[in-house]
Amino acid sequence: MDYDFNKWMSDYRVISAVGENDEGGIDRLAYSDYDFAARTEMLNRAYGMRLQCYLDAAENLWFSKPGTDPDLPPLIIGSHLDTVPNGGRYDGVLGVMAGFQVLRYLVDNKVEHRRTVELVAFSCEESSRFSLSTIGSKLACGLTTPEKLRNYKDFQGHSPVDFLSRLRYAPDTLEERKRHIKECLGYIELHIEQGPVLESYGTDIGIVESIAAPIRLRLEFTGRSDHSGACPMELRHDALAAAALTITEVERLGREEAKYRSVATVGTINVPHQALNVVPGACTIQVDIRGIHRDSMDRIYEGLESFLKKLEKEREIRINRVLLSDEDPVPLDRSLGEIIERNCVKTGLSYRWMPSGAGHDAMNVAKLIPAAMIFVPCRGGISHNLSESVSEKDLRNSIQILYEVVMDICR
Amino acid sequence: MDYDFNKWMSDYRVISAVGENDEGGIDRLAYSDYDFAARTEMLNRAYGMRLQCYLDAAENLWFSKPGTDPDLPPLIIGSHLDTVPNGGRYDGVLGVMAGFQVLRYLVDNKVEHRRTVELVAFSCEESSRFSLSTIGSKLACGLTTPEKLRNYKDFQGHSPVDFLSRLRYAPDTLEERKRHIKECLGYIELHIEQGPVLESYGTDIGIVESIAAPIRLRLEFTGRSDHSGACPMELRHDALAAAALTITEVERLGREEAKYRSVATVGTINVPHQALNVVPGACTIQVDIRGIHRDSMDRIYEGLESFLKKLEKEREIRINRVLLSDEDPVPLDRSLGEIIERNCVKTGLSYRWMPSGAGHDAMNVAKLIPAAMIFVPCRGGISHNLSESVSEKDLRNSIQILYEVVMDICR
Repeated sequence: MDYDFNKWMSDYRVISAVGENDEGGIDRLAYSDYDFAARTEMLNRAYGMRLQCYLDAAENLWFSKPGTDPDLPPLIIGSHLDTVPNGGRYDGVLGVMAGFQVLRYLVDNKVEHRRTVELVAFSCEESSRFSLSTIGSKLACGLTTPEKLRNYKDFQGHSPVDFLSRLRYAPDTLEERKRHIKECLGYIELHIEQGPVLESYGTDIGIVESIAAPIRLRLEFTGRSDHSGACPMELRHDALAAAALTITEVERLGREEAKYRSVATVGTINVPHQALNVVPGACTIQVDIRGIHRDSMDRIYEGLESFLKKLEKEREIRINRVLLSDEDPVPLDRSLGEIIERNCVKTGLSYRWMPSGAGHDAMNVAKLIPAAMIFVPCRGGISHNLSESVSEKDLRNSIQILYEVVMDICR
Repeated sequence: MDYDFNKWMSDYRVISAVGENDEGGIDRLAYSDYDFAARTEMLNRAYGMRLQCYLDAAENLWFSKPGTDPDLPPLIIGSHLDTVPNGGRYDGVLGVMAGFQVLRYLVDNKVEHRRTVELVAFSCEESSRFSLSTIGSKLACGLTTPEKLRNYKDFQGHSPVDFLSRLRYAPDTLEERKRHIKECLGYIELHIEQGPVLESYGTDIGIVESIAAPIRLRLEFTGRSDHSGACPMELRHDALAAAALTITEVERLGREEAKYRSVATVGTINVPHQALNVVPGACTIQVDIRGIHRDSMDRIYEGLESFLKKLEKEREIRINRVLLSDEDPVPLDRSLGEIIERNCVKTGLSYRWMPSGAGHDAMNVAKLIPAAMIFVPCRGGISHNLSESVSEKDLRNSIQILYEVVMDICR
């Protein structure tokens, strides 16, 4: 595969920087103006290449490079373009842009291939905005409905459906999209690892065996707000103090299950009407439990529940639990993984089979058709952070391995 | 004292409800439009009564009812009109409105008194907005300067000085106000207790011996933000988890010193760029330590400091400490207190001498002239809360005792 890496890189810098803030982080939240801007940039390039473009009813953006044999089921490659708040330049967008380079190479070099290659940028992969991840692929794969999504709100009270409705969402086109995906051969997603394993082993490529699933819940603590100077310690029902103990317990439970590669995190906290001189009367936190072993995740969940029961009684504080999502770990397709493996061997890249701690759109597509994932190392395993970084070598490897796998399947 | 309580009460309901929100709480933050609206309501009534009105350079609002002997130093009574966010209907405003009723009674009944009575509504008593309390009385008493206040910002980045400047603040009038206060006989502030002591003893009136002082600090935790699914527990530097341990420690230290009537509170917490799927990389909390025994406050402060040192090392997290205020407990004037005492006896009200856990404008005025405070019970000791409540009996007692004390001193 002979292409101009620097040209790709300069293009990559433009797309990956859409939504850059003053700190240098990327604020390309799902369905935001910046998210739309990034898609528009992609569309402009795709039109220039005369690719077929399609925006489905879930706001997923599709590009298609037709093969010579229209009877063969297409291969889908892809990832997502949205970021977490103050995020980095590789999570999601690398998979889309590596795939885009593969299509561009096929077009520019008039490479013949029998099977159609489709590239998808799924919408709203990150859970940052609506506390629910992979909304675009869930909708397209029929794993949720706009009706169910109405319960998920961002901090301004908008639901994802508000944004779908803006573009005149029509329910039957989602059905059509699901039928289309089911007719495809498989799905391959390239993504940064977002963890430290590949880097610490000095491995070029990760082949994902299974994707960890999240159990997510919102905990709403209700105590009593009081004057911070005049209310003695023994009469308090401090909602923030109760939440703090819970945060510590979530971490403890996560550490206890670390040997099974489970993790547990409190990522958000909110004290309404907060003030320095008021004992907090209410507090809300969100808990994210993930693992590839369901029983380990369940132990964290159950441990947390019995802790909360005790805490409610001891402190006379009400704790409302809202289950936001409860998913099972998803095994990926072994045969597709083995095609990635044999192309690593062919191109001289080292590889390892590994689980994915993070969720990805692939876990939804895997419910309909064979799905596989290619991981590339990121520096320090750092992700969801403005200092996300991928070496030039690994960027080159990304494009190379994806191209080899696509040609192996579609030639 | 023979007046129409119901008429006063209907007036009270109007003023105390300015800034009511959808939940029924009061959002009359210092220098907000609602704060100005409440003052305008007061001014309208005072003009009708032909009281002398004066807005000083610290935005404190003064009313004066001249006595027959202009050579006698005036007595000042007063409190404040601003509230905490989602606050109640008695903190501050009761003292102003009880004082206003005393003046109204003197005017309406043409009561003769030799000494001038002044009523003040100090500005920005609550620390909710700028993390600094009693700003209006501090300025008027020469205990701070506009220059120093520039460092205090609200969540929108405004400093108190921005609001003083709006009304063409001129530095020399603050000096004039301080000279005036120093020429007065004394200051008496009536306020709800904001604690449970009077109610639990069934006592009508509290006479404040001394006012607890706050040590306040902001703690800024810097860890590293990571992907909540892909970063294993052992590699994390979770800023929120570190803050949670600190919140628990602040509570523990406060409980340990509860026997000296000290308290310690974390009232605010902020995780920038927070998201459910991100390990928090930064977190800021604010700590409020109060007591009437300086050594007990110091033990909490020092205990916290040594905890933070250990935490920084154990978790490889940076913790920046910003001292927001550090004040000493303030004893009030014994002789003025005894005048309150003898008028309780005279009117058949039960009373007890007690400390004030909360800070008040009286602690600043006490630096210049004798100052005293009258506490009235509030239901459940609840304050800084929309369910703040005072019984009709205690409202009547408030006006009665304040009137008796004013007449005792000024007749």
